[in-house]
Amino acid sequence: MSDCIFCKIAEGEIPSNTVYEDDSFRVILDLNPANEGHCLVIPKKHAEDIFELDSQTAAAAFKTAKKIAEAVKKAFGCDGINILQNNGEAAGQSVGHFHIHVIPRYHGDAVVIKSQAVKNMNPEDFVKTRDKIIKSL
Amino acid sequence: MSDCIFCKIAEGEIPSNTVYEDDSFRVILDLNPANEGHCLVIPKKHAEDIFELDSQTAAAAFKTAKKIAEAVKKAFGCDGINILQNNGEAAGQSVGHFHIHVIPRYHGDAVVIKSQAVKNMNPEDFVKTRDKIIKSL
Repeated sequence: MSDCIFCKIAEGEIPSNTVYEDDSFRVILDLNPANEGHCLVIPKKHAEDIFELDSQTAAAAFKTAKKIAEAVKKAFGCDGINILQNNGEAAGQSVGHFHIHVIPRYHGDAVVIKSQAVKNMNPEDFVKTRDKIIKSL
Repeated sequence: MSDCIFCKIAEGEIPSNTVYEDDSFRVILDLNPANEGHCLVIPKKHAEDIFELDSQTAAAAFKTAKKIAEAVKKAFGCDGINILQNNGEAAGQSVGHFHIHVIPRYHGDAVVIKSQAVKNMNPEDFVKTRDKIIKSL
C-alpha cells in the first residue's frame, strides 16, 4: 500500500535495522524496544491484520518468528520470549500492517505483557461462551 | 508427558471447555480469561515451548489461532484481538506445554498486554544489537 510505512520498510524504501530478509518477510529491530533485541516480523505483502492475512502467510510468519526467537535467545541469553501479534487499536496495534513482535524477557524486568485482570465467570458462563465460539467457527 | 496437565487436557483425560479440536490441536477456554472468549490453542504433541516445538506444528498452531480469532471476533464483536505466546516463566508462561493465547480486546478494557516500558537505545546500539542477532541466525 502506497502510504503504509511498513510496506516501505519491508521493500527497503525506508531504512531499518534489518536482522533477516527473504522473499516474503523482513525482520527489523523495533525502534521502541521493550528490551534489547525486540524484533518485528513484517510480511512484504500488505495485510492490515490477521483477519486480512492469508493463512499460508500467517503460518510462514510464525515459523519466521520461531527462527528469530531462537536467534534472539542465542544472542542475548534472555530468560524468556514473548511472541505477540496485535490486531486493532484496542489490542495495541499501532501500525496498520500485520506484524509479529518477538520480545526477549528477563526475570524481574519492567515489561508487562499480560495483566492479571480476569473476567469472573462461573461454569455456566463458560459453557455459553464456548457455544458462542463453536457457532461462529 | 505423563505429568503435564495440558497433555491430559489435549487428550481429553481432563475435561475442558473445548471450542475446537482436530488431530493436532485442542482449543479450550482459558479458565482465567482476560476477557470473555479468551482461548488457548494447545498442540496435542508435547513441547515445552516454541524452541522445542517443530516448525511445522508451530506454523499450524498459528493458522489455528487465526481461525479461532476469526470465530471469537464474530462471536463477541470485540474491537481487537491479541495473539500471545509466552516462553519461559520470565515471559509469563505458567504451564510448561506450548500454547497460544487468543484474547478478545475492547477499547478501554482493563487488560494490559504490552507496557510502554522502553529500553533507551541510540543508533549505534541498534547496529550492535542487529549484528548480534544476525550472527546468531
